[in-house]
Amino acid sequence: MIQMVILGAGNLAQHLYTVFRATEGLEVVQVYNRSQKALSYFNATNTTTSLKELLEADIYIIAVADDAIAAIANKLPFTDRLVVHTSGSASMHMLHKKNRRGVFYPLQTFTKGVKVDFTKIPLCLETGEKADFKILKSIADAIGSNSYKISSEQRRALHVSAVFVNNFSNHMYRIAHEISEANNVPFEILHPLIQETANKIHTLTPYMAQTGPAKRGDQKTIDDHLEKLDKDIHKEIYTLLTQSIAKTYGR
Amino acid sequence: MIQMVILGAGNLAQHLYTVFRATEGLEVVQVYNRSQKALSYFNATNTTTSLKELLEADIYIIAVADDAIAAIANKLPFTDRLVVHTSGSASMHMLHKKNRRGVFYPLQTFTKGVKVDFTKIPLCLETGEKADFKILKSIADAIGSNSYKISSEQRRALHVSAVFVNNFSNHMYRIAHEISEANNVPFEILHPLIQETANKIHTLTPYMAQTGPAKRGDQKTIDDHLEKLDKDIHKEIYTLLTQSIAKTYGR
Repeated sequence: MIQMVILGAGNLAQHLYTVFRATEGLEVVQVYNRSQKALSYFNATNTTTSLKELLEADIYIIAVADDAIAAIANKLPFTDRLVVHTSGSASMHMLHKKNRRGVFYPLQTFTKGVKVDFTKIPLCLETGEKADFKILKSIADAIGSNSYKISSEQRRALHVSAVFVNNFSNHMYRIAHEISEANNVPFEILHPLIQETANKIHTLTPYMAQTGPAKRGDQKTIDDHLEKLDKDIHKEIYTLLTQSIAKTYGR
Repeated sequence: MIQMVILGAGNLAQHLYTVFRATEGLEVVQVYNRSQKALSYFNATNTTTSLKELLEADIYIIAVADDAIAAIANKLPFTDRLVVHTSGSASMHMLHKKNRRGVFYPLQTFTKGVKVDFTKIPLCLETGEKADFKILKSIADAIGSNSYKISSEQRRALHVSAVFVNNFSNHMYRIAHEISEANNVPFEILHPLIQETANKIHTLTPYMAQTGPAKRGDQKTIDDHLEKLDKDIHKEIYTLLTQSIAKTYGR
């Protein structure tokens, strides 16, 4: 049985709490949060608002905003225990070295209230000590996640990459939504194309999957599209991404 | 029984041929192509390389490159028959007015050799005459596609939108692939995030689904990401899309 304490009460803390509690071999012995209010979600478990009252456990999982990680880690009233954070961008070394350190980063976008299937979430794991890696790996295996050994520097690269595939792709959808709305076309017509574009990565690299006027060097269509776009920022984005695609294919 | 002639022998012509032949109530009576060579795919049907030999049919479907549509439509040796093209960007009026005109545009990305499920492909339909719309709608219904009445101007907007959700999203995947490879991280770690990002459009508008440092106005993370990016073009894209997202959320 791996005994765990979760520090934090936000979105990710709640998702982790839910999956850990539902998993054999894992036990959440306590949830800490600075304020009592947010702790109501966790009332099937011991909760505390005082770091001094933290119970003993095999692992302390800090699931708070990046800029609060160091402060909590510094204030922990014990040493030589396994303390991990869950951030995509913070270095493992943000955790105070008085404890054994690690990172347990689930690479996915979490929506409040939407149930999460951890078997579809890759976990990026990192530890200072080899033996601790086994503990993180056991937790990942127990909840059915694929896990990867990822250094802080690699995790930083993944976090930027995630911005491209998630934040920026979603912004492409947003722009398409704006354009279709402005032309009284239902956005749902584009849903199957969005799905198919995402599905293709399972069988083709993005390099191979690329199509369209930018790749073909079809200037007539490019000009027609630029003329059709009303907003300057959309024109700018269209132009820059078209350049970048053209460059990728040696045009 | 709707009798059809397909003009063209490329990727889309082949996919249409396959689904029409498999559908009750539809009959492909002939396939035309300028050169004999490409016609081998269609040899279960009458084929011709001469427009003068075209058989009589209820509908002539031109599935060729955009810049070849007008030339074929002009040379058709008959009048007052229903002639449609299948292009996302060409106006219906590119077809010669000696015939009844229309557009039958499947909004999807077609990969050569990969079987296509037309029940998941929206069809954008347009006709000059109301009665002809019914014929296009019957064909769409017969192959199980959702169809929409879309004007040439709306179709042009959809075609630009499709570039954003397909070509540009795929390019976001490509950039993420480059970054992860440069850092020895397997790109597959990002697959679930790509899927989830695409899946979210079914439950949330892209506006509601947006997350990330640009939306939050988290300048520290933005600076960290820009520092991590090696290529100038990636920095440029990151900066422009971050600006555009910030603007969308009134920052």
